[in-house]
Amino acid sequence: MEGIYMDAAATTPARPEVIEAVRKMLGQDFGNPSSLHAPGVNAEKEIKKARRRVAESIGAGPGQVIFTSGGTEANNLAIRSLIRPGGHCISTPIEHPSVQETFRFLARQDCVVDYCRVDREGNIDIQHLEQILHPASCFLSLALVNNEIGTVQDLEEIVRVARKKAPRILIHTDAVQAWGKLQLDWDRMGVDALTISAHKTGGPKGAGALVVCRPELIKPLLWGGEQEEGLRSGTENTPGIVGMGVAATLLPEEKKIRAMTRIKQEFFQQIREGITGVELIGPSPEKSVPHILNLSFPGLPAQVLVQALSREGIYASSGSACSSHRHQISYVLQALGLEKEVASSAIRFSFLDDISSSQAAVAADKVIQVVNQMKKVMRNV
Amino acid sequence: MEGIYMDAAATTPARPEVIEAVRKMLGQDFGNPSSLHAPGVNAEKEIKKARRRVAESIGAGPGQVIFTSGGTEANNLAIRSLIRPGGHCISTPIEHPSVQETFRFLARQDCVVDYCRVDREGNIDIQHLEQILHPASCFLSLALVNNEIGTVQDLEEIVRVARKKAPRILIHTDAVQAWGKLQLDWDRMGVDALTISAHKTGGPKGAGALVVCRPELIKPLLWGGEQEEGLRSGTENTPGIVGMGVAATLLPEEKKIRAMTRIKQEFFQQIREGITGVELIGPSPEKSVPHILNLSFPGLPAQVLVQALSREGIYASSGSACSSHRHQISYVLQALGLEKEVASSAIRFSFLDDISSSQAAVAADKVIQVVNQMKKVMRNV
Repeated sequence: MEGIYMDAAATTPARPEVIEAVRKMLGQDFGNPSSLHAPGVNAEKEIKKARRRVAESIGAGPGQVIFTSGGTEANNLAIRSLIRPGGHCISTPIEHPSVQETFRFLARQDCVVDYCRVDREGNIDIQHLEQILHPASCFLSLALVNNEIGTVQDLEEIVRVARKKAPRILIHTDAVQAWGKLQLDWDRMGVDALTISAHKTGGPKGAGALVVCRPELIKPLLWGGEQEEGLRSGTENTPGIVGMGVAATLLPEEKKIRAMTRIKQEFFQQIREGITGVELIGPSPEKSVPHILNLSFPGLPAQVLVQALSREGIYASSGSACSSHRHQISYVLQALGLEKEVASSAIRFSFLDDISSSQAAVAADKVIQVVNQMKKVMRNV
Repeated sequence: MEGIYMDAAATTPARPEVIEAVRKMLGQDFGNPSSLHAPGVNAEKEIKKARRRVAESIGAGPGQVIFTSGGTEANNLAIRSLIRPGGHCISTPIEHPSVQETFRFLARQDCVVDYCRVDREGNIDIQHLEQILHPASCFLSLALVNNEIGTVQDLEEIVRVARKKAPRILIHTDAVQAWGKLQLDWDRMGVDALTISAHKTGGPKGAGALVVCRPELIKPLLWGGEQEEGLRSGTENTPGIVGMGVAATLLPEEKKIRAMTRIKQEFFQQIREGITGVELIGPSPEKSVPHILNLSFPGLPAQVLVQALSREGIYASSGSACSSHRHQISYVLQALGLEKEVASSAIRFSFLDDISSSQAAVAADKVIQVVNQMKKVMRNV
């Protein structure tokens, strides 16, 4: 691809090692893991290895990993398994559509859902959380990292508060934007379930996982051949799963993550100097997740700007990919309480982990040029 | 892989062109189809092409194809969308677990399911079907080709009978073992929904499709970003979908299919001459689907035989892959009314479409050798 890709929160290219592993599982090692012959046994062994690798990447046990077709399926599986019919659930207004829509659907049935307030930077209002929790609250789901503005929640504190007020609460976190960007420690997080997705961090699309404390709590979404210990039927997507396993071994190290944060800060600094009136949305760049920066260019419609940037070879996004086609202001940005003018001009820049300082500088220059050009045109209209 | 793979009904290796397409979508063309920038638009275009290719392979329209994570998800989606709560449904006792288990679950709720009898060769008993149909029957699901014994149902006749007795019935067929082995003509079949899976015919694992007459009848199994026109949320598995599209253009032609049938007949003939007491299960080889041959070697436990064959480089299966780990007699074979001794010694040989006569002859020789050797050992025990 020519140009500079700044939409890593939407998806990433698979790493060469992942592509090689997928290729091998499609051709040479194509057996069905359920088959009893050698090619089947071999495929089963490869799945087992992938399961161990994914588990190890967050410090969980292999028996806690359920492979799914991606983050959306894992989020659906977690929520629909862990709520109690008629029970009181808690979420936030800034969740990914796969969480938000699932709660919306369940709320139409017999589930009561309360949404915890967030501040202008997307942080959960812990006092409000305490207020809406009650001793019988049964389920809490919130993203560890917000996908549009990069806010990192204080998960340990949230878990502590929730368990104190509601001792039997089950807690799920969507960690899709956190895997490979923050150090995840399963035991320290103390959640009951956690979602990750391969393609957000160098793995293949079509593979994700739900990591669960107690697999016996999971109610399958699909019925059939009882793969994944009966929790996810369907012939295993061996190329996807094995590719995800390889991606799990290639997550960027601390040093690279620190470099990403620095590059993001430089990028922001350069844009702030080159464009008047640019507004940062969400936390300050050193506090948010290393790969996400959300900036608003008031007066310029975000979708038009995304397309103008694309023509110049800068690939960024308005809102999340999952809602970009709806042509409306992001519900996440609305929930932050942003002015409509700011929200409707917001662009998410999200960085691949191998971006260089010089690439980011070239990208910032292009953004400055396109934005200033567009501003001139808009004034003349 | 060394040896001769005779388990094509469980899964197949992806064709080289498919692997190349997957590789391209993982690396170069990795964009998220929901993104508005050039890489996103490009990925969307590739999905569109795949949709057209899959639709064309069975004579349906592209707007009728819903991509899923595979056959199991497509079967679940069809059944759970098309049944009417409290309604009368019909299926058969020889369906794939993803159909059977879904009906079993639904029957525990408020759905009434009747199972149409099949004869010893797996053919639906049309008279019995007429008896159990009533004017208000709402849903019928049956596999066009049985996955264990290769019976091809007379779908057109079944559809005619069903619609005559129950004018508003919705009909689904699991065509996973038929795609690429029989000429499928959407209009002639006259069903409301049809399931296919990529990996059974040279495509990648993790991709399948439900083809539907009226997409508006489909109730999504997953909630979220509303991909696939809102019917299947989750970032599209672009490598899987595009790979499936390529596989759809490479389905074997009539001539190759005829050759497969001939090779299967020769294989059967050779084994029959070399092993006394071998029993054919299911229809005669010229009537069943070209790639499946189920043979019983009474006295030899199927799972032990599968493993013994595997050690000699012949990869066949006992029952379907999806239930091979359960170590029990196949429910499909039981439903045919086979004697326990015959059913528990049944081996499914299923042929890749590029198998040669000489490979099949080598395989038959090995089977003869292993079976006769095992018989000798069993007698001496």
